[in-house]
Amino acid sequence: MNAERRTPVTVIGLGNMGAALAAALLERGHETTVWNRTPAKAAALAARGARVAATPAEAVASSDLVIACVLDHDALHTVVDPVVATLAGRTLVNLTTGSPEQAEEFAAWAAAHGVDYLDGAVMTTPPGVGSPEMMFLYSGLRTAFDTHRPALEALGDPLFLGADAGLASLYDVALLGLMWAAFGGWLHGTALVGADGAKATEFAPLALRWLGGAVNAFITRYAAQVDEGRYPGDDATVDVQIAAIDHLIHAAADRGVDNALPRLLKATMERTHAAGHGGDSFASVIEVLRKP
Amino acid sequence: MNAERRTPVTVIGLGNMGAALAAALLERGHETTVWNRTPAKAAALAARGARVAATPAEAVASSDLVIACVLDHDALHTVVDPVVATLAGRTLVNLTTGSPEQAEEFAAWAAAHGVDYLDGAVMTTPPGVGSPEMMFLYSGLRTAFDTHRPALEALGDPLFLGADAGLASLYDVALLGLMWAAFGGWLHGTALVGADGAKATEFAPLALRWLGGAVNAFITRYAAQVDEGRYPGDDATVDVQIAAIDHLIHAAADRGVDNALPRLLKATMERTHAAGHGGDSFASVIEVLRKP
Repeated sequence: MNAERRTPVTVIGLGNMGAALAAALLERGHETTVWNRTPAKAAALAARGARVAATPAEAVASSDLVIACVLDHDALHTVVDPVVATLAGRTLVNLTTGSPEQAEEFAAWAAAHGVDYLDGAVMTTPPGVGSPEMMFLYSGLRTAFDTHRPALEALGDPLFLGADAGLASLYDVALLGLMWAAFGGWLHGTALVGADGAKATEFAPLALRWLGGAVNAFITRYAAQVDEGRYPGDDATVDVQIAAIDHLIHAAADRGVDNALPRLLKATMERTHAAGHGGDSFASVIEVLRKP
Repeated sequence: MNAERRTPVTVIGLGNMGAALAAALLERGHETTVWNRTPAKAAALAARGARVAATPAEAVASSDLVIACVLDHDALHTVVDPVVATLAGRTLVNLTTGSPEQAEEFAAWAAAHGVDYLDGAVMTTPPGVGSPEMMFLYSGLRTAFDTHRPALEALGDPLFLGADAGLASLYDVALLGLMWAAFGGWLHGTALVGADGAKATEFAPLALRWLGGAVNAFITRYAAQVDEGRYPGDDATVDVQIAAIDHLIHAAADRGVDNALPRLLKATMERTHAAGHGGDSFASVIEVLRKP
């Protein structure tokens, strides 16, 4: 593809993530305009060919596609509110971390001012930006996503979740929650086997193979069960798991490893049993998570 | 390979798992002798070519390799204690679920009676037995593992963890703990996005891609950090994660989703911060898990 044909893009905010976004766009040949509250951050990008705007108004006026990644929701309003007239008719892609409610507020603000709005979440750290395996989640105006998809592909793999602008942030925190839980379980297991002399780098390959194999297969099967609202326990029932988790809790207690996580998981399974799902699969735990 | 060259194997215990083990051995052409406390369970296997032993003594005398998978540790002692003289000089592979301490007790018992002993853990449900991707964990006598590896390969992918017989059970519960934690985080995320209308089968593919991509990469990097006892927070610090988990907790609370799991994860991160690791990576959480 000819670089001249690529959409000009403006990037507002040059923290570690914003700078990585701008660098990925430059790398793919986009005419890239950058603006940051403290201009010094723009120097390295200018050396790579970025145009440095002196003001937010100049930055916004430079491109039909404006990608923002600043500290937080309020910081973005501070930058774009004064230039909303210039932003009208253009697309604002907001990759600032925030809540679903903040995304919806911004979508309403944008709609009221004639700005096409996409909210997004970057599912990688700055070094991963530009890699086509990395997920970028978007929600909001579908036409804006379709129009600017080629530019968004410079950043990673763009996935559109739906018209509700809050969905990208919602999926973002849901995926982070899965990550923290997996980290917690993995570190608990690492501490446990480590107490008997196994290295973390010995346990990790088995843990990753387990996550990618059996756990992956269970989640795929259980997702269908959740959507059906039926949880046949033919592989392993909640009651069987309650019995099995006692082995984990005892082994960890014997080795002085903190058991708060498995104890909470056991208590949640016991609530699931009490709700009548003892003979169902682990997927039935969602029934008690929805009704605390 | 010629079926006549395969090691004869005895399988003691024909619950769902034991029957699957025997079926996999028959499938791969092993002369397979089976015994179960209630003989009716052996009929289907007999139809597939298994020899049905009338007594534990006859079962043990039939093969140099005896694989046991019964209800629990005590049940196995009940079966093998009376036939220990016949078992002497043979290999006992114990796939009965139990604690590391029970495995070590059995290893000591076996050593005292001249029985070669391997403890094992089956990291799949019965339908997965026989598939070469499935992990079977073994620990105990290395020479027994090496000698019988071809037969153990009929069951899945045999992995030897070390001479300490308790290691297979310890890794087993550690991996199950990771699974329950991942299930918990995934179901919390599923409930969260489900509150805004997303199906579990829409969220699961992203969750699995996230686990297999970014989370996998973090765990690989963090495992090396744990072994080094140094946790550079250059990707994302504990303090950054504490701030981010509040978005999750608020979004879930707004939607009536039980927050016990993210609250516990946040509290654990806050203890990690208090221990001086606020600027370190999430891997530093292991420091507080080891010192409850």
